[in-house]
Amino acid sequence: MKILIINCGSSSLKYQIIDMTNENTLCKGLVERIGIEGSRLIHKVEGQENYVIETPMKDHKDAIKHVFDALLDEKHGVIKSLDEISGIGHRVLHGGPDMTESILVDQRVKDTIKEFVKFGPLHNPGNLMGIEACEEIAPGKPNVAVFDTSFHQTMPDYVYMYPIPYEYYEKYSIRKYGFHGTSHKYISHRAPEVIGKPKEELNIVSCHLGNGSSLAAIACGKCFDTSMGLTPLEGLMMGTRCGNIDPTVDSFLQQNENLSAAELNTLLNKKSGALGVSGVSSDFRDLEEAAAEGNDRARLALDMFVIRVKRFLGAYIAELKGCDAVVFTGGIGENSATMRADICKDLEHIGIKIDPERNNVRGKEALISSDDSKIKVYVIPTDEEVMIARDTMEIITK
Amino acid sequence: MKILIINCGSSSLKYQIIDMTNENTLCKGLVERIGIEGSRLIHKVEGQENYVIETPMKDHKDAIKHVFDALLDEKHGVIKSLDEISGIGHRVLHGGPDMTESILVDQRVKDTIKEFVKFGPLHNPGNLMGIEACEEIAPGKPNVAVFDTSFHQTMPDYVYMYPIPYEYYEKYSIRKYGFHGTSHKYISHRAPEVIGKPKEELNIVSCHLGNGSSLAAIACGKCFDTSMGLTPLEGLMMGTRCGNIDPTVDSFLQQNENLSAAELNTLLNKKSGALGVSGVSSDFRDLEEAAAEGNDRARLALDMFVIRVKRFLGAYIAELKGCDAVVFTGGIGENSATMRADICKDLEHIGIKIDPERNNVRGKEALISSDDSKIKVYVIPTDEEVMIARDTMEIITK
Repeated sequence: MKILIINCGSSSLKYQIIDMTNENTLCKGLVERIGIEGSRLIHKVEGQENYVIETPMKDHKDAIKHVFDALLDEKHGVIKSLDEISGIGHRVLHGGPDMTESILVDQRVKDTIKEFVKFGPLHNPGNLMGIEACEEIAPGKPNVAVFDTSFHQTMPDYVYMYPIPYEYYEKYSIRKYGFHGTSHKYISHRAPEVIGKPKEELNIVSCHLGNGSSLAAIACGKCFDTSMGLTPLEGLMMGTRCGNIDPTVDSFLQQNENLSAAELNTLLNKKSGALGVSGVSSDFRDLEEAAAEGNDRARLALDMFVIRVKRFLGAYIAELKGCDAVVFTGGIGENSATMRADICKDLEHIGIKIDPERNNVRGKEALISSDDSKIKVYVIPTDEEVMIARDTMEIITK
Repeated sequence: MKILIINCGSSSLKYQIIDMTNENTLCKGLVERIGIEGSRLIHKVEGQENYVIETPMKDHKDAIKHVFDALLDEKHGVIKSLDEISGIGHRVLHGGPDMTESILVDQRVKDTIKEFVKFGPLHNPGNLMGIEACEEIAPGKPNVAVFDTSFHQTMPDYVYMYPIPYEYYEKYSIRKYGFHGTSHKYISHRAPEVIGKPKEELNIVSCHLGNGSSLAAIACGKCFDTSMGLTPLEGLMMGTRCGNIDPTVDSFLQQNENLSAAELNTLLNKKSGALGVSGVSSDFRDLEEAAAEGNDRARLALDMFVIRVKRFLGAYIAELKGCDAVVFTGGIGENSATMRADICKDLEHIGIKIDPERNNVRGKEALISSDDSKIKVYVIPTDEEVMIARDTMEIITK
């Protein structure tokens, strides 16, 4: 069985075909600048040269047409007919409180994605366009929506509610939702396999650290708390996002810099975080380099990131009634031994002790804590696409 | 030596005289509705009936005149002449980054208090009016400013900086300052005495829980981190303040409820927190009662408060390189055995174990952890007035 995975941004689209017999990726690709001058599709098959199509693509429907063409291409394609694709799994940012699991797309699902554009204005519209394009171009093919929020919908009310007037929860559904759910769910499945215990017997803190970052406290396989909130802006400091700040900063900047609410939102989402502090880059590799060369604001940005991860790590270990394992994943979590070491430094008193030799690892599964560490620490590369494909397969074969 | 303590709000004023030979309070009092119809002064001397003056008081100068009259009153007074007062200690909310200690008031200090009205618009103006009134009415009497922010100015840059563009730090001094400093400082002095070790050898988490709440991570007597930020709005959920929320909530509410930045600020400071969630009260005693009677939103507000304290407690224990003691103080921290028990529940795995019998205590110093608790847990009633008086005495006798 082959599953097509589609992840639509506002003007871009990523895709992948996974063969579920062995969970191998047959191809992956990227469409850039949809609806903008200079649209192009880059199609990648392992062991082959990239296949690039440069042609105007006015909307997501156009883009997906070209994706299907590439998939079916005589020379570069990986399938002979669309019939080979059993289903399409769509990554969707925001599913609100009712989308507690991945789900076969119907009108209600599309309405929900539309409703939660209010909290995912940059992602939900593109996600929906991708689904509707597939419905048109490949009618009858089952589409499955896999939400970034679903995994977190097991949080209890006292964790997901905000301390603001209750009426805004009733009126707008303002609450914590959490994101990176597909990644944290993957970790919640994979970590127990690596540890060799059923997930029902394990409490884990999953640390997804990348350009966007979030932690999740996972109790017996279920999300108990996570650091992102109503939107992916809350929680940790990220590449360009501020995470938690004094709410007064918002109104102060608005008043003193004459910013509209929308401008402020852009400032906190796109110009803050590691980029805003360092003035150097949102990429942590650039920051590590700059800091090593003596750039003090790059050093500051890194230190700020580390202490903030440490805070959430300590918080989530406290919230869980005992913690068995901490897992690092995501671009930074998988690849930066320095960041992992800094985050775990001086945490022996709460049961975390890194083995420097074991920690010297990049992008592969590894135990990195020492044998006498009460809490085991692992690196586990995440695989959101496989998770989406698994959910999709499960739903279409039900 | 007698010290007068003055704590000016925007339309109210609290005062106290402390005799420093034994740190006894000779009298305390309150002026309400300054500049509003119905002004009155209530003067209290232990063992005597309250002395109440109801007369128009058009400003803080007027109010302080009446305070001095009460202090000198033949029947209700506690001093014969103003000469008996050696100095006046003023509680000031925001001292910015430079006021790292309590300080004798001069023009520079007053300018600083004025400058930081921008981050303490509800408190700094009243605080300054109180100082200026004393300068006029009791010329030559030394006035000492004791800032809520000072104790926290030992935080390292990566703790106090926000992940927003660096220019706003340079332009406006936007950063974390922290508050309740006088209370946390008192705890940082008193806890080592209670424990019987020098403060330089102890790491403590001080939990000031009241209508306003904050935690401080105190390493070897110095503040390393604290939960309030640029203003007292950040951090924990409080009686009427929201604490940490997704920054997007701000702009969303503004746009959808058509609120100005100032109205939003009021909403998050005055109508949120436990009051906003429960719709019942900002007072935790009322909430405990309502919850016991089955009010689910009161239950929710209490549960939310507890998990939020637990988060910061876990975070700060992680940030400190080992933690010796946790101290509960403030109205809730000193008096609510239930809240203390709920906060510390299921924290044995990080070294905290409460003894239910010992925890059954209200408003007095007590060890409440069990003998096998790795981290000792104490109740220590705070005494901000004594702390202000001590700082004032130290400065005027230097």
